[in-house]
Amino acid sequence: MKIFGDEKSGNCLKVKRTADHLGLAYEWVAVDIMRGESRTPEFLTMSPAGQVPVVAWPDGRVLAQSNAIIRYLAAGTGLLPTDPFEQAKVDEWLFWEQYSHEPYVAVCRFQMLYEGRPAEERDDWRVARGESALDFLDAALSARRWLVGEAFTVADIALHAYSHLAHEGGFDLSRRRHLTAWIQRCADVFAGG
Amino acid sequence: MKIFGDEKSGNCLKVKRTADHLGLAYEWVAVDIMRGESRTPEFLTMSPAGQVPVVAWPDGRVLAQSNAIIRYLAAGTGLLPTDPFEQAKVDEWLFWEQYSHEPYVAVCRFQMLYEGRPAEERDDWRVARGESALDFLDAALSARRWLVGEAFTVADIALHAYSHLAHEGGFDLSRRRHLTAWIQRCADVFAGG
Repeated sequence: MKIFGDEKSGNCLKVKRTADHLGLAYEWVAVDIMRGESRTPEFLTMSPAGQVPVVAWPDGRVLAQSNAIIRYLAAGTGLLPTDPFEQAKVDEWLFWEQYSHEPYVAVCRFQMLYEGRPAEERDDWRVARGESALDFLDAALSARRWLVGEAFTVADIALHAYSHLAHEGGFDLSRRRHLTAWIQRCADVFAGG
Repeated sequence: MKIFGDEKSGNCLKVKRTADHLGLAYEWVAVDIMRGESRTPEFLTMSPAGQVPVVAWPDGRVLAQSNAIIRYLAAGTGLLPTDPFEQAKVDEWLFWEQYSHEPYVAVCRFQMLYEGRPAEERDDWRVARGESALDFLDAALSARRWLVGEAFTVADIALHAYSHLAHEGGFDLSRRRHLTAWIQRCADVFAGG
């Protein structure tokens, strides 16, 4: 399969990490979103929403949306629980990530890293909601090792992606010790630990 | 099961419509979000994110996030395809809805309906993205009867929820004929047609 992605994007990183963790063979096709490479006619024909990441298979199937992709790749592996309700709890985190975490933590990072804004020029309301999201995650991790059940899942991969890059969006994780300990546990998994 | 929801919320409507379509027995527990009823200590103990809809079962299980809930309720029924890749295409729409449609179409509606803002005082950037989302959906529906495969699925339920209420957010659907025809097809399904 081909993964079309931007390596600075946490959403793309989710797909890369899932594929690497599962030992899947893939070709990484670099797409520079700042140069409009996800909005070319060729790209839009493949994936009309014009966003990365996108995965394309040799038989013509194409799938967009980072969390849809990683959930699909994870099905039948240890990265997705077999119990339907535990799968739903993974989904609960995946949707929360896209609605209540990414639009604040990742967009603040985008404004600083891609657009060159200083931290003090981030949108106040985005900063406040990003801080709340990180606090919520820290609280959720106070009593558990992984987000769902007893094992590392794609919920951890999805939430780790922009949480471990939050400092690049001007967020300070140092006082969130449950969150930082979990980020380290995730890093250990990615390192093969 | 109990569904905690606000009947004016499209996200809550998704759960009600899925449960009704499947003939599931439930108790609807009205939660007035404008009176803070999703932020009480009791509610937060049940569901820490403090959002509706939430579904609670007698055995103590609790599930939040509208799209996670409807996907879970739909598993094993005609509302979710059996093919794993078609399921992933449903997920692609569900995540797109929460990231690229709801924050614009539904939030503009919230500003007008709940906060009483006139249409001209909506956020310009939200309006522009909402218009784009509705155009995208209209284009996607130009060549298909339902969003995924050949059957009505939870992807249709999720996207219908705020699309058919878009006028309450100041959006004009009349020139989007594929979208309006599909909204009518969905309405026919809900009416038992």
